[in-house]
Amino acid sequence: MATTIRTATEADVPQILAFIRALATYERAPDAVSATEAGLLRDGFGPNPFYSCLIADHDGRPAGFALYFFNYSTWEGRPGIYLEDLFVQPEFRGLGIGKALLQKVAAVAVEKECRRLQWEVLDWNTPAIDFYRAMGAEFLDEWRNVRVSGEALQQLAGVAALVAEQAESAK
Amino acid sequence: MATTIRTATEADVPQILAFIRALATYERAPDAVSATEAGLLRDGFGPNPFYSCLIADHDGRPAGFALYFFNYSTWEGRPGIYLEDLFVQPEFRGLGIGKALLQKVAAVAVEKECRRLQWEVLDWNTPAIDFYRAMGAEFLDEWRNVRVSGEALQQLAGVAALVAEQAESAK
Repeated sequence: MATTIRTATEADVPQILAFIRALATYERAPDAVSATEAGLLRDGFGPNPFYSCLIADHDGRPAGFALYFFNYSTWEGRPGIYLEDLFVQPEFRGLGIGKALLQKVAAVAVEKECRRLQWEVLDWNTPAIDFYRAMGAEFLDEWRNVRVSGEALQQLAGVAALVAEQAESAK
Repeated sequence: MATTIRTATEADVPQILAFIRALATYERAPDAVSATEAGLLRDGFGPNPFYSCLIADHDGRPAGFALYFFNYSTWEGRPGIYLEDLFVQPEFRGLGIGKALLQKVAAVAVEKECRRLQWEVLDWNTPAIDFYRAMGAEFLDEWRNVRVSGEALQQLAGVAALVAEQAESAK
């Protein structure tokens, strides 16, 4: 019974997508995933990848994953690591695999001279919150997360206005 | 009286650091900035920069800045843009410069086929919150921000344990 943590390869993309979907279901958003294998392959395994991924295998079976990328702190004047996803399949829980993945990401952060490892947790996810607190994490509850997406993003970018203008001048 | 938005160059680094410090002071954390000009130069203007920066000039004087980088959404299966800093000097407020900076970042997001532009705001910063809401932003208050840094990060990475082990074996 052994767990190994390794860097994901292109061959893991179908499994990564399966993990992403399983995590979204756990996060009560099963329909939120529009990612595709082609997109994950393009964005994670090209010359300038947008993310990195670790896979935990337990007795040779994929048990969980951690997906992260570099962010930047202007206060620190240093890159940091943002952990986008951390997930262990239900049947592999209680074996320390989540902790092993988190420790490995922390080790990458230290190796890259990052001073911060950051992520988000849903406020009702008490088991995860307790786990993170036990790992020495702090909760930055003074900061609210803000997002512009979809139509609002297009409008803010002025694209909607531009399209309307073009439609007008084409009349 | 004209505002122009342009991409920052290496020559702007001292001004970028001045903006970062002014924003930290506004955010009631004047001593939080340990960034240096050398670090900002290294991380933003090398072959694989960790961040991008826009400068707003008003009548030829630096009035504000927006500093951002790419993040990654596993639900979207696409990179997004994370806006680390958005700031307009007090004497240039009320001229639409903050909106112009935010619009330009949104335009970059749309151009890069990102579906999300995301950032954080302090919960007491009501003027900013109102401004963002007017720009079509949503607030993701179900998500708590979590961070491991400093000593806790070292410990999680096992570096502290390793150092202790080395000290032990050196006895």
